[in-house]
Amino acid sequence: MGTDTKYVIVAYDIENNGKRSRIAELLLYHGLVRIQYSVFAGEITARELKDVTRKLFDMELEEDDNITIIPICMNCKKNVWSIKPLPEQIKHLSI
Amino acid sequence: MGTDTKYVIVAYDIENNGKRSRIAELLLYHGLVRIQYSVFAGEITARELKDVTRKLFDMELEEDDNITIIPICMNCKKNVWSIKPLPEQIKHLSI
Repeated sequence: MGTDTKYVIVAYDIENNGKRSRIAELLLYHGLVRIQYSVFAGEITARELKDVTRKLFDMELEEDDNITIIPICMNCKKNVWSIKPLPEQIKHLSI
Repeated sequence: MGTDTKYVIVAYDIENNGKRSRIAELLLYHGLVRIQYSVFAGEITARELKDVTRKLFDMELEEDDNITIIPICMNCKKNVWSIKPLPEQIKHLSI
């Protein structure tokens, strides 16, 4: 993995169904994986992260909408845990 | 801030209203702040993080429920961004 690759977690509260679907599609398109209903995670290049962040910031949000972008280092990535194993963690367990 | 203090983000999908409220209360009790409807964040001691994690892992979850715990270093904390500023970020901006 190049030094320009990041691990990012994106969580969103979006009331409008269409807008929420478009955000999910954007994140899937950039290779992120759904780890909860409105939380995605995965590796992404720095360039793509910038692109995704710009697209998310450009969205017109309703009053109660919000999106949180959490880019973390590979050391912190090791400490991310779901009560139910993430697909990646299942993969790691089988190595 | 002592070296035993962590920054943690906790995101959950919990179908049962009562259980969801209890989780929110647990996280608030430990000093975390609600940054989205089902996402909390804040500084926590390593001991408290262990305690919170144990309590969350001990919960009986439904099939579609999940909880993700993201403890991050202070360097990564600087890169956490919400589309709408976090209370902390507003505070930082005013310094």
